[in-house]
Amino acid sequence: MGGSGVGIGLVGLGTIGTGVVKVLRRNGAVIEQRLGFPLRLLRIADLDTGRDRGVDLSGMRFDSDAEALVDDPEVQIVIELIGGYDVARRLTLRAIERGKHVVTANKALLALHGKEIFDAAARRGVDVAFEASVGGGIPILRSMREGLAANRIQSLHGIMNGTTNYVLTEMERTGEAFEVVVKRAQELGYAEADPSFDLDGIDAAHKLTLLVAMAFGADLTFKDIPTEGIRGLTPLDFEAAARFGYRIKLLAIAKEHEDEGGAERIEARVHPTMIPAESLLAKVDGAMNAIAVHGDAVGPTLFYGAGAGELPTASAVVADLMEVAREIRRGSAGRVSPLSYLPEALTAKPLVPLGDLHGRCYLVFSAADRPGVLGQLASVLGEHQISIESVIQQRRDEASGSVPIVVLTHPARERAVREALARIDHMPEVTAPTRLIRIEEEL
Amino acid sequence: MGGSGVGIGLVGLGTIGTGVVKVLRRNGAVIEQRLGFPLRLLRIADLDTGRDRGVDLSGMRFDSDAEALVDDPEVQIVIELIGGYDVARRLTLRAIERGKHVVTANKALLALHGKEIFDAAARRGVDVAFEASVGGGIPILRSMREGLAANRIQSLHGIMNGTTNYVLTEMERTGEAFEVVVKRAQELGYAEADPSFDLDGIDAAHKLTLLVAMAFGADLTFKDIPTEGIRGLTPLDFEAAARFGYRIKLLAIAKEHEDEGGAERIEARVHPTMIPAESLLAKVDGAMNAIAVHGDAVGPTLFYGAGAGELPTASAVVADLMEVAREIRRGSAGRVSPLSYLPEALTAKPLVPLGDLHGRCYLVFSAADRPGVLGQLASVLGEHQISIESVIQQRRDEASGSVPIVVLTHPARERAVREALARIDHMPEVTAPTRLIRIEEEL
Repeated sequence: MGGSGVGIGLVGLGTIGTGVVKVLRRNGAVIEQRLGFPLRLLRIADLDTGRDRGVDLSGMRFDSDAEALVDDPEVQIVIELIGGYDVARRLTLRAIERGKHVVTANKALLALHGKEIFDAAARRGVDVAFEASVGGGIPILRSMREGLAANRIQSLHGIMNGTTNYVLTEMERTGEAFEVVVKRAQELGYAEADPSFDLDGIDAAHKLTLLVAMAFGADLTFKDIPTEGIRGLTPLDFEAAARFGYRIKLLAIAKEHEDEGGAERIEARVHPTMIPAESLLAKVDGAMNAIAVHGDAVGPTLFYGAGAGELPTASAVVADLMEVAREIRRGSAGRVSPLSYLPEALTAKPLVPLGDLHGRCYLVFSAADRPGVLGQLASVLGEHQISIESVIQQRRDEASGSVPIVVLTHPARERAVREALARIDHMPEVTAPTRLIRIEEEL
Repeated sequence: MGGSGVGIGLVGLGTIGTGVVKVLRRNGAVIEQRLGFPLRLLRIADLDTGRDRGVDLSGMRFDSDAEALVDDPEVQIVIELIGGYDVARRLTLRAIERGKHVVTANKALLALHGKEIFDAAARRGVDVAFEASVGGGIPILRSMREGLAANRIQSLHGIMNGTTNYVLTEMERTGEAFEVVVKRAQELGYAEADPSFDLDGIDAAHKLTLLVAMAFGADLTFKDIPTEGIRGLTPLDFEAAARFGYRIKLLAIAKEHEDEGGAERIEARVHPTMIPAESLLAKVDGAMNAIAVHGDAVGPTLFYGAGAGELPTASAVVADLMEVAREIRRGSAGRVSPLSYLPEALTAKPLVPLGDLHGRCYLVFSAADRPGVLGQLASVLGEHQISIESVIQQRRDEASGSVPIVVLTHPARERAVREALARIDHMPEVTAPTRLIRIEEEL
């Protein structure tokens, strides 16, 4: 063993940054037994240099000067853990310009500015590693990029946001309302003070943008991905799902479609989804994540682990440090394309509109409690070629005087369902917009 | 894109070899979009050159001369898919001597001769890649070696043999006897004509030998791993397991133990195991594999996929080809140690004796159908400090006149259980040796 090691600078000493320091300290010996040389965390920059993080920073320079850190000639790899867009982008690009390799957990940055950053890194001959940005400690990006690289990927189904999965699991377990569970999640540290990015599916869509590029070589614009969060869900939905043999998960879904002419289109979407209760994904509870990947050669696979948290995320950051350090030692930076496909092979591919989706739907109608209403709803659905598989008529809600009617449809085209719902929601007997949860049977 | 590509030779055109040809043909374009250059399968060697494998071999040289293939200066990577020990070993070492990189799926070879082969490869500066040897298409070795490399691995629990998992799943589903299910598995191609390696746990123990090295840096001797197959299981066991809330899986288990003095010992074993029916591993059915890995930073993870089969295994072989081809192009062979730890960091570590294990046990006693027998059994168990959690007394077996008594114990030391069973099996009322299935609660 031995050698002088590779010099590292860490920008952002928050939860994950602290975890990185802990892992490097605790597992330094094992890391060196695997690498043959040490990782040397030389300096740390954070605006808050006063707070005690309960971690030993002896032997490291710690100040608030991120730019000086990036410019420090001893620093060969910069870990960017400040999050957000602007400052992180500037700092990352500055590091790359200075010939530094970058390790980041910032999916938001890469989903929006990935092309600019990866292009700059390729020009400068440095690596940008970002395993921690998707699936926390799960080595899903490495697996997509290398482990499954011989496959045409056919589909992805991911539970990729721990906060929402925790909220959904708790709503199901307790029967409590969304707001109650979110509040408790905040108290327990499972949800941030402003949990919008998580609850509205934005975070999952950021991650999906990266996975879609790696899976299909598709250069999607993050904003084009249809994204729906979990705010509308009610205890009734979980009850009904259980009766129908489903569980509700916020899924990020992507599939490759080949049209008759051979043209490729990409299906990509984030929304609450009912999935068979017996599927492996349905068993992923609490803050855990899992990504099911289907490849044409490998068939179905699934990768499960902690999607967030101090040490799990640090596990991925340090794995990236080890890989980049090896590339530095061997002069092999850029060995693997960050998005799996060569930059020139990444192409814009059209998205499949949601209207083209075909599957069972779970619908909740709010209707006045009068005889014949169900018949009217069924007639409109029938006129749009949507047939009903099951109906659950709930007790009357005394406050509103209306009654929720839960319908499970046979597989139908989403465009037809939307057209039927537009008509139904204009009916005088209907007291609130109909809610729709998509059902995904094949995982 | 472009470049002249990397030249490959394939030895062994059986099921997996044919799959490799198919994947290279079918996904050549995607592979080149990821690599930037093509993989060129130049020649194939197999003793049987007559049989039609239903795959297009045009443009490849196909003969029975494996040594000429290995010696061919155009061949940079040799794929070894002949299996077995002696011929495979000689050929692999010959390839390495000639400066060829090797990709193999041969866990038996590596479990027994890994040290010799990896040492030779390191001296010669070539890579030996073997992702396909464990978990079929699941990128578990890459994940252990790189994705989870920042962790001290604490435990592994793997369903790593598709044949046995298929047999167990079918025995549970149908209630049929072992022999009946094995026969059907052979007819369906899920079990080989001589399925001993699978059914007796040898194949899983080969794989565990490799994983234990990668997880703990422990240089174990394959033959030292306590290994028990699934031949003894009966329909009664599956019924009883279900009543107790368990399922039965053939698990390969490994854990790191640190004694008070800081000395490390390794627990490693392969045997039928009862695991909680609600655990993710318990949901892994049929010929699928999964490996649960617990790391000190990442926490629990699980990797799931097809553990065998033509295309899933080929997926792993071709992923290895892609990686090795990149190392060739970048001159970075040997970048990552094949067993994750540097060779000099791999050390012999003592195995924890089975007697030291501590956990619940499932016991099946065969006793004469006489009053007081259960009391006698319970007394002996009690004298060895083993307390009983549940008992199921079955109907009398008219043929033998004896009655199976199923006992679930509270957690106990295995040494004590064995001592009690040795006494019990000498009791005149006991008509057959008591069977024991270990229970693993924490996965």
